Amino acid sequence: MEERIIGIDPGSRYTGYGIIEKQGTKLKHIASGVITTVKIPDLADTVYAIHEQLQSILETYQPNILAVEKVFHSVNAHSSLVLGHVRGVILLAAKQANVTLLSFSPTAIKSATVGTGRAEKKQVAYMVSILLNLRSEPLKEDQADALAVAICAANTQTYTTLS
Amino acid sequence: MEERIIGIDPGSRYTGYGIIEKQGTKLKHIASGVITTVKIPDLADTVYAIHEQLQSILETYQPNILAVEKVFHSVNAHSSLVLGHVRGVILLAAKQANVTLLSFSPTAIKSATVGTGRAEKKQVAYMVSILLNLRSEPLKEDQADALAVAICAANTQTYTTLS
Repeated sequence: MEERIIGIDPGSRYTGYGIIEKQGTKLKHIASGVITTVKIPDLADTVYAIHEQLQSILETYQPNILAVEKVFHSVNAHSSLVLGHVRGVILLAAKQANVTLLSFSPTAIKSATVGTGRAEKKQVAYMVSILLNLRSEPLKEDQADALAVAICAANTQTYTTLS
Repeated sequence: MEERIIGIDPGSRYTGYGIIEKQGTKLKHIASGVITTVKIPDLADTVYAIHEQLQSILETYQPNILAVEKVFHSVNAHSSLVLGHVRGVILLAAKQANVTLLSFSPTAIKSATVGTGRAEKKQVAYMVSILLNLRSEPLKEDQADALAVAICAANTQTYTTLS
């Protein structure tokens, strides 16, 4: 069966998204970009904007899987709180669109793209552009990260409980 | 003008809500309770359930103000992350219902009910039941906390930027 996966890299300023399709053993890039909310000072307006835009992306591209990174709250409590607000409305949008939710550890995502769990961000972005044939267009960091999550989901058939 | 205020005390297991009306200098209890999600193991299902139920409460009671506690992330990073998910969908529901959002510090909320910022939870609950004439019905903790936030909003006319 053809699988269409959206990977999301949540952030209160920039939320990356990347949609790919699994066609047999091949991966095809469908669309990707960044939801930018950096100029919105209010957190409520930020989550509203992210939820609205993600809903519209889900409607346009109709993925059947939404994948996000597991969060290990290694960041500080304030960052965790703000990131939580954004991640909350992303999970909500996935549930509302009836999309299967998967989550992956940072190590799994790096392994799925670079082949090792200890890769640097630049290596991940480079491998994403190779794997999806996007070498002619420069990828933004959050866009590349979101595509990496999607690639990880495409290559991992094991369902991982969301946490 | 008559003001109808809903106070919310967010939590991934229990989310208290309390709706009051400001009639001149008097406060009237309209409805209050607890959205219970303690048996839902998955965080995405939890935020979905809270958002759905809050939307239905907002539709039923049509408040024009939604008040929440400011979060000072004094809790640990993991709790902050989980609380953030819940708070995110609450702010979203408020924006979607076009309700004015206010937030208050824990000290302001205690002062508005007990008269001092250093009150204990039990004192707050007791004063809430006195102020709203609810002494015959025992209030649950999260329900009392939510009503305290609503009382604080009713007694504070200054708009406080949400953070």
